[in-house]
Amino acid sequence: MAEAKITPRSEDYAQWYQDVIAHAELAEQAGVVKGCMVIRPHGYAIWEKMQQDLDRRFKATGHKNACFPLLIPMSFIAKEAEHVDGFAPELAIVTHAGGKELEEPYCIRPTSETIIGHFFSKWISSHRDLPMLINQWANVMRWELRTRIFLRTGEFLWQEGHTAHATHADAREEVYRMLDVYADFAREVMAMPTIRGVKTANERFAGAVETTCIEAFMQDGKALQAGTSHDLGQNFGKAFDVQFQDAEGKRDYVWQTSWGVSTRLVGALIMTHSDDDGLVLPPKMAPIHVAIVPIYRKDDERAAVLAAANKIAAELRDDGLVVEIDDREGMKPGAKYYEWERKGVPLRIEIGPRDLEAGTVMTKLRIAETDANGKPKKDVVPMEGIGVTVGRMLDDFQQALYDRALALREANTVSVDTWAEFEAVFADGASKFVWAHWDGTTETELAIKDATKATIRCIPLDGEGPAPQAGACIRTGKPSAQRVLFAKNY
Amino acid sequence: MAEAKITPRSEDYAQWYQDVIAHAELAEQAGVVKGCMVIRPHGYAIWEKMQQDLDRRFKATGHKNACFPLLIPMSFIAKEAEHVDGFAPELAIVTHAGGKELEEPYCIRPTSETIIGHFFSKWISSHRDLPMLINQWANVMRWELRTRIFLRTGEFLWQEGHTAHATHADAREEVYRMLDVYADFAREVMAMPTIRGVKTANERFAGAVETTCIEAFMQDGKALQAGTSHDLGQNFGKAFDVQFQDAEGKRDYVWQTSWGVSTRLVGALIMTHSDDDGLVLPPKMAPIHVAIVPIYRKDDERAAVLAAANKIAAELRDDGLVVEIDDREGMKPGAKYYEWERKGVPLRIEIGPRDLEAGTVMTKLRIAETDANGKPKKDVVPMEGIGVTVGRMLDDFQQALYDRALALREANTVSVDTWAEFEAVFADGASKFVWAHWDGTTETELAIKDATKATIRCIPLDGEGPAPQAGACIRTGKPSAQRVLFAKNY
Repeated sequence: MAEAKITPRSEDYAQWYQDVIAHAELAEQAGVVKGCMVIRPHGYAIWEKMQQDLDRRFKATGHKNACFPLLIPMSFIAKEAEHVDGFAPELAIVTHAGGKELEEPYCIRPTSETIIGHFFSKWISSHRDLPMLINQWANVMRWELRTRIFLRTGEFLWQEGHTAHATHADAREEVYRMLDVYADFAREVMAMPTIRGVKTANERFAGAVETTCIEAFMQDGKALQAGTSHDLGQNFGKAFDVQFQDAEGKRDYVWQTSWGVSTRLVGALIMTHSDDDGLVLPPKMAPIHVAIVPIYRKDDERAAVLAAANKIAAELRDDGLVVEIDDREGMKPGAKYYEWERKGVPLRIEIGPRDLEAGTVMTKLRIAETDANGKPKKDVVPMEGIGVTVGRMLDDFQQALYDRALALREANTVSVDTWAEFEAVFADGASKFVWAHWDGTTETELAIKDATKATIRCIPLDGEGPAPQAGACIRTGKPSAQRVLFAKNY
Repeated sequence: MAEAKITPRSEDYAQWYQDVIAHAELAEQAGVVKGCMVIRPHGYAIWEKMQQDLDRRFKATGHKNACFPLLIPMSFIAKEAEHVDGFAPELAIVTHAGGKELEEPYCIRPTSETIIGHFFSKWISSHRDLPMLINQWANVMRWELRTRIFLRTGEFLWQEGHTAHATHADAREEVYRMLDVYADFAREVMAMPTIRGVKTANERFAGAVETTCIEAFMQDGKALQAGTSHDLGQNFGKAFDVQFQDAEGKRDYVWQTSWGVSTRLVGALIMTHSDDDGLVLPPKMAPIHVAIVPIYRKDDERAAVLAAANKIAAELRDDGLVVEIDDREGMKPGAKYYEWERKGVPLRIEIGPRDLEAGTVMTKLRIAETDANGKPKKDVVPMEGIGVTVGRMLDDFQQALYDRALALREANTVSVDTWAEFEAVFADGASKFVWAHWDGTTETELAIKDATKATIRCIPLDGEGPAPQAGACIRTGKPSAQRVLFAKNY
């Protein structure tokens, strides 16, 4: 592994993605369990950081965590007509348990609207029980034909928010509140710009009346749906008889929402920031912030250099940073640099005998500007006050990654008005973010997909795309009220 | 629910346990999924506190979290002979997925030694890869005939540590390190005393060469196995061909351990501390530390009282406490007291107009000494410096609960030397902790169980039971090196 090279993006983007994951030891295909993955410690640590930050945001918006059964009676899935059509083909089915064939088989949850609807019907009877704001961190299973690590796997980890409200207006407010939570998290923590929008009817969650989403731009020009927030209307309320009595004594079905993000966010993070040298992590997503590589030849140098490294590490740890001192013997500094770079550690500190004399260290950000000789720039930083300096460098790096990702997206976003131009953008496997007019029909949407493999990622919310302006559909020439976002997608 | 009463322990202990859970809204039987439960927000918040504290302890001892597949190929389970015998009867089997019958069925993991053994064989090749110290937070499934909420459920949540070492001595050190982590956690956080010991061959984990455990005393005199730590020897290493090369180039199988605690700890917590008024939580396990109940009659009183309540809450929150101000309208203070008591909130603060004048509040611990009139004692506490006072009260309460649990266990622990006496202790459904001599054979162990329903909970570690002293087996009169712990068990 240490000897193998990461395939450059320009050569084979899909292989590059797999190589980045393998070299950073983030995860691997399970192999023995079809379409499933093993998330290794470095990958799981990134997911844990996502969980911690999101969980804080969910609790700050009034949600409480709970845990519902993994197994769902098959009859439940069938209760909401669109839901069963959407999910039945992907289910994994338990037919035997405890040495016997089951009277009614269970499926492993592909999502939990149905079983949670069942319990909401037991827990909700009055408007005083509303809103009910629940979240679950769980594993779910969707038996997909084509899988890709983190992006689409048979089993994946996620959170699923499920809420019930007294009015449709309350539910819609919740849908957009949580969409904003996701967009804020992506921007502030993942350094990943997203576009908030509404899905077309064709791309809607099975059972929802409206699906909203955040769409992120990947380096190959494709879009990745990074989170969804659904207005379920009263569909599941009616399917599971979740009724409440309002203050006037009138009974009605609750209005529900659901919203989720999953371990596919780890894939989105990789494809937003990483480069041909491997994983790149924004500091707020990095399980290790700083790797210190001590440099020495003789034993007495070793002791002094390690003492200084420990002193610096202690100061940085006091500031809440996770620091690794790489004191492995029998390994050259260059090999260590290479390894920490591939693992995405944002900042490396090199410290040797000459640095000790000068009272400085050498620092190298994971992505650095090049110097006059075309080599990645290293900075000389005084040991005095290093905590403040490193803190500032990491803050700046976090922001720089966001700016870089946004700039790349903007450079690959076009407004297109002719079909020829549209086809050209998506020719030969290419993709960009394309703002174009569409006549609003599923028929046209599918015709465009058939012709180009590009799909409508979303109808942007106000301010997320070009200012709404009427035009003519790129494909049919029929009237269109606004441009929508097209791209190939993961 | 609010009207129903909690069944007293003396009347029906099993019903009391269920009532405590229902009244505190901790969890409920799923019903529609056989033997499974739904963990409701208040119960899940307790589990989250357990997770956070344990996860910190695991990481501090060098372990990293990862995530392995939920599904395990059936052929894997069969690779370790004792393992398959132990677990096969309890498996839930997935036979169909993605609309097709599977060529090889999967089981839902009952535990993950097998699948993790498979990946260890891919990841471990050299002594430099050891020790490998992995933990997984996961759901597992064991199809049990008789289930009891939290204590024994078809699906449960747990953590499973899995480690590989170069020598048996290293592995055994790990086994006992993690047993101590569990015992420390139980004592320091759950305020629950435990006895550390070794299981008899008959009670050993299927596939282990030795199983160690912590055993806790429940209020009905029964024992609850609260955590286990297994020495797996080279059994799984051989079954999954996990070999490494040592520094001299010699190849050998790794020595493995596994260790786990589960949501059954929530059941243990309930049965250690709760009383006929409902749930009792040690402060370190309480999702809500303090409930403030404002008391007023008129509107102007309301504003002043709520302002003071908010000021106190802010001060306590600054100290890291979770505080609820119960300002619900149309509900009498007494009903509020009742509800917070049933939910196990350690401290209640009452504040009314007269308290405002005096610059004091009334406090009531969840379990309070009784005053001269036989009523639970309330304390008058000055608002000035209330953060310090409340912090001290909660610390003292944490310690008092531990002392109380230990005293109850000691009062119900006996050393017994005759069979008649032994039978008498366990007659009519009763149980105590009994130290008695045993001849070391499975035959005698089972004969004692048949006669009394009491089982050997553990052979105590040094210092955990009476000083080792030879004697005669309670049942057969044959020689015994030391007394072992007998009790009925959950």
